[in-house]
Amino acid sequence: MRSSEGLVVETAPKVRLFVDAPLATGAEIAPAREQAHYLFTVMRLGEGAEVALFNGADGEWRARVARADRRGGTLVCLERMREQDHAPDVHLLFAPIKKARTDFIAEKAAEMGVRRLRPVFTRFTNSERVNVERLRAHAVEAAEQCGILSVPEVDPPATLDAVLADWPSERRLMLCDELRDAPPATQALRAAGAGPWAILIGPEGGFAPEERARLRALAFAVPVSLGPRVLRADTAAVAALALWQAALGDWG
Amino acid sequence: MRSSEGLVVETAPKVRLFVDAPLATGAEIAPAREQAHYLFTVMRLGEGAEVALFNGADGEWRARVARADRRGGTLVCLERMREQDHAPDVHLLFAPIKKARTDFIAEKAAEMGVRRLRPVFTRFTNSERVNVERLRAHAVEAAEQCGILSVPEVDPPATLDAVLADWPSERRLMLCDELRDAPPATQALRAAGAGPWAILIGPEGGFAPEERARLRALAFAVPVSLGPRVLRADTAAVAALALWQAALGDWG
Repeated sequence: MRSSEGLVVETAPKVRLFVDAPLATGAEIAPAREQAHYLFTVMRLGEGAEVALFNGADGEWRARVARADRRGGTLVCLERMREQDHAPDVHLLFAPIKKARTDFIAEKAAEMGVRRLRPVFTRFTNSERVNVERLRAHAVEAAEQCGILSVPEVDPPATLDAVLADWPSERRLMLCDELRDAPPATQALRAAGAGPWAILIGPEGGFAPEERARLRALAFAVPVSLGPRVLRADTAAVAALALWQAALGDWG
Repeated sequence: MRSSEGLVVETAPKVRLFVDAPLATGAEIAPAREQAHYLFTVMRLGEGAEVALFNGADGEWRARVARADRRGGTLVCLERMREQDHAPDVHLLFAPIKKARTDFIAEKAAEMGVRRLRPVFTRFTNSERVNVERLRAHAVEAAEQCGILSVPEVDPPATLDAVLADWPSERRLMLCDELRDAPPATQALRAAGAGPWAILIGPEGGFAPEERARLRALAFAVPVSLGPRVLRADTAAVAALALWQAALGDWG
């Protein structure tokens, strides 16, 4: 487009795709089948059209459609538009809940800046199954739509016991508990200070008494309160992330 | 139930309903038709069963089914279990977005503690219609399920111009803008201090330049940043509420 000064200003392409391939000048990218459908059938892009590509590692690239084919096609990387950035070193651990609310947590984790998503089964977790690919797809879609360059990794689900057994002692754990005796989150986070962190959101039924006792006894655990109301797990995840980002992350 | 000391401990009824009627000892309540369906068909409560009732004004009451009738029935208030409380004096103004995400905002506003929800149309608001009853129903349902006593009021939608024309100057406005030049939210809120507040979440397309200029020039406006990433409007609403509650509300 042409700016008011008459200079040619290159705008970022409107279509933005995550691809699972290295990006570099001249690299040829074969879109996945559903991406080809989106590019060439839904968006009706033809040869020469430009798209933005990112892969979570090499920044954001301007690419051109070299061959439009509804079952595949080829994109060619032209130039890097943005350098890669990284979400703060915070993981989000959550007990899986209803499908729509679990999808929502994956989406919000991508939007708000989380490095890793870890579904954990606690004693009172109702949901038995977690579809890691589906969570990852929701995180990717949110990243595509919100201009985000770093997509959270999604770990396979594990029991809380297994997760704690392998816990690196230097990673602090923000323990979002419904008991009212924990200090306010902002105050507790600031007192604990910066470094690698994780946030643990309990299941809808709360932690079991023996789980709670075990968690609170951990040297790296930082129990926090998220106010006087009982929050649903998806609300607690977004609220906890906002408070963490503001106190210790890149919103400060 | 019987506690470990052998005393009879009365537990709160599991079924919890919002009713639009005064609550007092002996008051007879006629559930709405869909509530009667829920009580007597879905939950299969019979005469003598107990439910919890609240109306946003008179606290939470234990009530007994005096007459079970799938098309109506009667509940009788027995005793007040909890005193009424009030959400902090904060309003949430938001530009309506897709239906599911607007419903979500109403639900989260109830969970997190908001006194009034105000849908506002900005220049770049895509959604044309707002169903106030539907928003209210989502807020009520969240309050019922999360044990909340105060349900946000929902105003009819209005244009941003009309809302600002009637604005009381003592109510501060947390202006969540995507421009990066505003100070971090926690810092800006603490500097502005306590009192009546409102939070304004912009539309998905952002504010129009003339809207932004007008908003920023308002003496009661407090522009804040919600970090370096572009957030969807529903995410921004929950994040902004969490930061407001932690800095100036009842999470502190």
